[in-house]
Amino acid sequence: MAPLRKLVLERLMRYYRFLYTTTAKKSFETVTSAHIAQALEIDPTQVRKDFGAIGLVGIGRVGYETCEVCRAIRVVMGFDEDHEAVLIGAGHLGGALLAYTGFERYGFHFVAAFDFDPKKIGREIDGVEVRSMRGLKPYIRRHRIRLAVLTVPVEISQTITDRLMAVGVKAIWNFTPTHLSVPEGVLVRNEHISLGLSQITYHLKGS
Amino acid sequence: MAPLRKLVLERLMRYYRFLYTTTAKKSFETVTSAHIAQALEIDPTQVRKDFGAIGLVGIGRVGYETCEVCRAIRVVMGFDEDHEAVLIGAGHLGGALLAYTGFERYGFHFVAAFDFDPKKIGREIDGVEVRSMRGLKPYIRRHRIRLAVLTVPVEISQTITDRLMAVGVKAIWNFTPTHLSVPEGVLVRNEHISLGLSQITYHLKGS
Repeated sequence: MAPLRKLVLERLMRYYRFLYTTTAKKSFETVTSAHIAQALEIDPTQVRKDFGAIGLVGIGRVGYETCEVCRAIRVVMGFDEDHEAVLIGAGHLGGALLAYTGFERYGFHFVAAFDFDPKKIGREIDGVEVRSMRGLKPYIRRHRIRLAVLTVPVEISQTITDRLMAVGVKAIWNFTPTHLSVPEGVLVRNEHISLGLSQITYHLKGS
Repeated sequence: MAPLRKLVLERLMRYYRFLYTTTAKKSFETVTSAHIAQALEIDPTQVRKDFGAIGLVGIGRVGYETCEVCRAIRVVMGFDEDHEAVLIGAGHLGGALLAYTGFERYGFHFVAAFDFDPKKIGREIDGVEVRSMRGLKPYIRRHRIRLAVLTVPVEISQTITDRLMAVGVKAIWNFTPTHLSVPEGVLVRNEHISLGLSQITYHLKGS
């Protein structure tokens, strides 16, 4: 299968969440592209096209088997694999991420957290131990961690990133409001929440 | 000035953050488009074009006055105005957002939080009182709040949104992983962090 574009991945994720949350309430065995399309305000042709791209074929007016759709998306997205992550920076936001249980359904879980603050080191946050930043590289090497979540102050985000690259981390989930330089082949996913905020202040401005 | 497109706003925000963080370390009075472009990996022509769109003109090799650039972006973005927000859902993520002090520089601050949980109601989180959800609509009406931050469970996010619309809220910063229906003229900014997560699991899959 050719690599899927980011927009396709985002739509697949929306389908998955929709099926996941609606089937949790009232179970239905089949679902039509028209139903999904209406609920998510997406063109139904687009839904069928996206499903086709991951090998799903609907049957006339019956549509698709819900379980099969969810399973196909899980496999394509890698949710069935085990994604061990380290959290770097155990502050407010880091703590909220550690405490959030919704990541597990994506095969994602934290195995350790790292911080510079001696008051935090040794403590547990929702079952995850906070370790000294000095042990970061050895830990990642020993456990072959490929994913790091970054919630450190902006000033040290690139330094930490360079350390992560040196020990083979392949993806960074970046919650720091800055641009990170990484080698080719490494994914940085930015969650710049202040970008969202600026869109809002712009919208509200002078209104 | 014509409304700026979302991508232009996002770039302006990146310039602002860059100037804000670098000038905090070593102050420099002027900055060139080439310098910004290199640091942020953006085409220098694009930087000059974006600056031109908000009325900034550089001087030959000297470039732009840093203060003037920051001021122009603040005004265009609405950071100099006062944006009072309510938080709805005082859980882990909600608490992290209340505790975050970085929003103030965008003119944004929380004036109240709302929750259904009697154990949370009446408590203060970082100086913001948690109130009963029953008082949500009267509070918003009385204080003419136009911005709400949504960190509630998915199942009630649309119901809450409908209530907010009934009392004139004009923008929702949505941290719930769902699609919200709102009337025209209302902005919903989605921070779907699980979208980011799926991009990462897809990248790491089978590698």
